[in-house]
Amino acid sequence: MFYFLNNRIVPAGEAKISVRDISILRGFGIFDFLRTQHGRPFLIGDYLHRFKTSAQLIGLPLDHSIDELKGLIHELLEVNRLPEAGIRLVLTGGESPNGYLPTDPNFAILIEELHWPDENWYRKGIKLITYPYQREFYQIKSINYLTALMLQPRARNEGAMDILYHNGEEISETTRCNFFIVRDNVIITPDKHILFGVTRKKVLEIARMNFPVEERTINLSELKQADECFVTGTGKKMISVVDIDGGIIGNGKIGKVTKRLMDMFNEFEAGY
Amino acid sequence: MFYFLNNRIVPAGEAKISVRDISILRGFGIFDFLRTQHGRPFLIGDYLHRFKTSAQLIGLPLDHSIDELKGLIHELLEVNRLPEAGIRLVLTGGESPNGYLPTDPNFAILIEELHWPDENWYRKGIKLITYPYQREFYQIKSINYLTALMLQPRARNEGAMDILYHNGEEISETTRCNFFIVRDNVIITPDKHILFGVTRKKVLEIARMNFPVEERTINLSELKQADECFVTGTGKKMISVVDIDGGIIGNGKIGKVTKRLMDMFNEFEAGY
Repeated sequence: MFYFLNNRIVPAGEAKISVRDISILRGFGIFDFLRTQHGRPFLIGDYLHRFKTSAQLIGLPLDHSIDELKGLIHELLEVNRLPEAGIRLVLTGGESPNGYLPTDPNFAILIEELHWPDENWYRKGIKLITYPYQREFYQIKSINYLTALMLQPRARNEGAMDILYHNGEEISETTRCNFFIVRDNVIITPDKHILFGVTRKKVLEIARMNFPVEERTINLSELKQADECFVTGTGKKMISVVDIDGGIIGNGKIGKVTKRLMDMFNEFEAGY
Repeated sequence: MFYFLNNRIVPAGEAKISVRDISILRGFGIFDFLRTQHGRPFLIGDYLHRFKTSAQLIGLPLDHSIDELKGLIHELLEVNRLPEAGIRLVLTGGESPNGYLPTDPNFAILIEELHWPDENWYRKGIKLITYPYQREFYQIKSINYLTALMLQPRARNEGAMDILYHNGEEISETTRCNFFIVRDNVIITPDKHILFGVTRKKVLEIARMNFPVEERTINLSELKQADECFVTGTGKKMISVVDIDGGIIGNGKIGKVTKRLMDMFNEFEAGY
């Protein structure tokens, strides 16, 4: 595999940065992740726009325009010759003399093989567990996944595929996905304290053609009343949620609205 | 400068790790930081014990015993030949195939020149600003400093040297220091939701010889009643706090209990 690192395309094994980088010493950096569909970067404009926004909000300079980033990604995909690929952009705090404050960032584009979740997740739906946590500076796709990774063993023990964050009252998002409920055929998703997903945006666009959509606060208590739940994310697309903390959602199977949306999303993707 | 990286001593410029390390992709890792006094690592046992504890709590394997770590640090100090040095231990999530879950850690020991704060901080005291935030998994010295670094520009604008975290009611710690108040000659410091500092421990030990000490919850409202405030940390030792959010503490000068403790700490250090 070949990566892009600070203006050069290098073999993945040579893509290394100093242990003094502020991402390593202080967990300070941003990233984004997109993928190809039929060999072409899927919804690339949205992802690059978000990456630029994250850089601006965290205060790290990014020397490349969106068009330059598109060019670099195109070049990198050509060199790597994968049928489909994951594309990860990473911008770090840079090598810091004082070990604390960010300096000139390191910028990397990584190409990865795509690994989709188990086919059963799509057919049977998944379980979530809930946890009280609000991502810091949630509008930024920062590299901070401490809570997410610390909770992995617990999720695994409980047979859950992901963790749903809330603040004691309101639901925000899962560790890596946006969250939706369906009630009386209305599709509802939080509009605050979340990272706005690119898949979320596309699914909402598709949903609006066929269903009423509400972007608003979802209270924890509404989970019990939901007919269906699902999550969206780049690396997952759309997955039905049939169990939250051991409470069964609807009849415990993929709901009909969720199924319809999944089909429509797959159709959009197939025609991309 | 020479660093230790995964079983080898290497020139600092060659101490590099893969951009696929989970510290870079997911901000997942721990560290600790100590320093020499008269060329010898100061209170090394406490620091290495905490580093081992952090590794255990975050779930990253550390292949070296405390004695081995002492040996490595000794060797590294010999090679670097600095009169005094900062010693930074870093243990990361490792190079992850799936870009998410930790694998075999990268372990590094960095040697740094020591930079003490401005002499004026010690003579005149410093200002803090407060911010509602609880460090995730606060018992672990993780590399997550996202909130701390994001707030730096605001602190700078307000002339503050650090940020004091609270949960809306109770005070915990600053971004990199433990926090104390003095009231009626009693020394009080939080005992919950904090990282237990090595300097904190030593200062408490010294304080107990001369003053009543309370390790207990400090409410935000108690700041107004404090006669004196100060912070402790490895890279700062003890610094008086004379202003919090624009509210002057005591008479706005270093208090007499703080001054006495600073002298006693310096004395202990000088005799180390």
